[in-house]
Amino acid sequence: MLMKSKDFRHYLDWAATAIPDDVIRNNDKFIFGNPSSSHTEGRLAKEILENARSRCAAVLNVKSEKLYFTSGGTESNALVLHSLHLKKGKGRLLYSGIEHPSVRENCLRLKGMGFPTGEIGVEKSGQVTENTLSRALDKYSDTRFVTVMGVNNETGSLMDIKTLVPLVRFNQGAPVHFHCDLVQALGRAPVSISAWDIDSASFSAHKLGGPRGIGLLYLKKPLDVLYAGGGQEGAIRPGTENVQGAVALADLLERRVNVETIKNEKEKAAGRLNYFIGELKKIKRCALIPEDRKKDDERFSPWILQLRVRDLPAMVMVRALDEEGVAVSTGSACSSGSPERPVLAAMGIHQPSRLEGFRVSQGWSTVKSDFDALLSGIEKAISYL
Amino acid sequence: MLMKSKDFRHYLDWAATAIPDDVIRNNDKFIFGNPSSSHTEGRLAKEILENARSRCAAVLNVKSEKLYFTSGGTESNALVLHSLHLKKGKGRLLYSGIEHPSVRENCLRLKGMGFPTGEIGVEKSGQVTENTLSRALDKYSDTRFVTVMGVNNETGSLMDIKTLVPLVRFNQGAPVHFHCDLVQALGRAPVSISAWDIDSASFSAHKLGGPRGIGLLYLKKPLDVLYAGGGQEGAIRPGTENVQGAVALADLLERRVNVETIKNEKEKAAGRLNYFIGELKKIKRCALIPEDRKKDDERFSPWILQLRVRDLPAMVMVRALDEEGVAVSTGSACSSGSPERPVLAAMGIHQPSRLEGFRVSQGWSTVKSDFDALLSGIEKAISYL
Repeated sequence: MLMKSKDFRHYLDWAATAIPDDVIRNNDKFIFGNPSSSHTEGRLAKEILENARSRCAAVLNVKSEKLYFTSGGTESNALVLHSLHLKKGKGRLLYSGIEHPSVRENCLRLKGMGFPTGEIGVEKSGQVTENTLSRALDKYSDTRFVTVMGVNNETGSLMDIKTLVPLVRFNQGAPVHFHCDLVQALGRAPVSISAWDIDSASFSAHKLGGPRGIGLLYLKKPLDVLYAGGGQEGAIRPGTENVQGAVALADLLERRVNVETIKNEKEKAAGRLNYFIGELKKIKRCALIPEDRKKDDERFSPWILQLRVRDLPAMVMVRALDEEGVAVSTGSACSSGSPERPVLAAMGIHQPSRLEGFRVSQGWSTVKSDFDALLSGIEKAISYL
Repeated sequence: MLMKSKDFRHYLDWAATAIPDDVIRNNDKFIFGNPSSSHTEGRLAKEILENARSRCAAVLNVKSEKLYFTSGGTESNALVLHSLHLKKGKGRLLYSGIEHPSVRENCLRLKGMGFPTGEIGVEKSGQVTENTLSRALDKYSDTRFVTVMGVNNETGSLMDIKTLVPLVRFNQGAPVHFHCDLVQALGRAPVSISAWDIDSASFSAHKLGGPRGIGLLYLKKPLDVLYAGGGQEGAIRPGTENVQGAVALADLLERRVNVETIKNEKEKAAGRLNYFIGELKKIKRCALIPEDRKKDDERFSPWILQLRVRDLPAMVMVRALDEEGVAVSTGSACSSGSPERPVLAAMGIHQPSRLEGFRVSQGWSTVKSDFDALLSGIEKAISYL
């Protein structure tokens, strides 16, 4: 049984972290032993770990040996990007303008260290499309690494990854690595790693209601990575394996990630969001970001919505809603310390609108009354203007 | 209440991973929210996280702001060592010949990438001493980074860190960073970070009976690190914080790490080990590594013992003991895939003795009968020779 949203006031910040699933709350399976140890305790731990990996692989429809457990989405992204240190002088890194800080900041770090980089523009909808990607590839013929996320964490904009990968594959005849941050996509949008033919992808457990400290990295082929150690996880991710976390992640993938569940949950989420969008239109000063976002808009995930209230800074709105028992956020929780909004800037949204943007993100236990509370809270905040 | 060792057969591989403490088994405190979120749920998570940090800081007698939660000892070591990428051309990295793979392999990686490195030799006892460190410093006058562990994970050899740091501080007048892997020291030997005046130190929760996926990094001063992201943990360790893990680690530090407890537990451990060493001497073919290790030998931690049986490869011994219900290991679990024994090689131990070395490591719930089972198992294995 999933925890009820009411236990958590009106929690509408699922993109920051999901309400924990009972998989973790009731997970008292006792897992012991270091999977690298050759004695019985170690072999048992190894067996449990590999069983968890197989279950994850079955859900994601990839081979087990292509999945590596990491400490989360941030580490999965960082270790792929920083593998470039071992390929110095081998071409340019392109990243989209809407990447999560765990991708964006590492690209900027590499740029600062002298790696050739370039930014992929986005449509006004916040989407990387064949158009915007082609433009970047035309500009940078030495591209050998591209990173584009699946679902944006601030606006919910959807990227059609399967149309983007072929553009990159055959750039100037040289192989190009396509990395995809699928943290916000997993369990919320269809994910077809093999069909899309991507080279690597990142996943996080806690966005699915799992524990912190566990995530996955998919690698089509093994990669030389920078951090070394005891050789665990095929030397891709050293450190004693988090077996308990791996099992929880496998449990969650089986629960949340299948075509039918995703479709059903998405329909319910879309219904709630459509209701909210309809009601919001009746409130003056309110606008969606981008402004032309519609009900059932196929360019966006119904789980995430970015909006704004004219003349009301998002920081003030988040505080005002919080006092009304509604949890929403400005941009990514991973950049809440910064007033910059690079994702909105990439979409061509100017100040002061940019600083008015705030994010509403829902989950499987979200109910209509959460959105009603949000609507009341917005109206109340506006009444003080 | 700590779990009884009998639930785990005769588990004598605590250096690989400790028997889980009830802190994790019964830890059903419900922690929610992303500490980077500014709403109530986020602020509460942040408060819990910072409270855990303060508790860890109080136990370790350092300021809170100098402690960073990481995913474990391996990551703590890697992120300090790879910070050198941001200090290129700024001098040499010296590492001791007995470092854990999470240090050693990263030093070798840096060496392979062209960083100037050098190895610090050890005494036959497996200790880095003022002597061996001075010799290395004399050889490499461009040293700007030194890494020496506190307690060796294969032999239990103890380093007198407080005598080593002053040698390094004033090398040629330039500042030198002293990093110390204290994973095997924590809770088993006195640790005085501030008094020793080290620049950084690594700790892991699971060696104390805590969960996987959580550890600590102490930094005297903030460091520019390679991996970037959402700026969590003072931008030292990006990624959504593992709050639950941090709380478990704080609980364990309070339980395990204080002068009195460490002294008492060490005395008990020494009593058990002395008994074992005494009995072992009666069995032919058996020898300690190094051979001159004695009862109550102040050069070693009583928690870890390396020994060998002449003509019996350690791999065979580990399997034979496992069948008798006794879990021991060859070297580090983090290098169990490799037949190399760099720690023993650094001690000047030749083949075939090196491949005969196996490790016995005990913990707080180890009892005399665990060692009796080990003695019987060794005798039985020898009887088949």
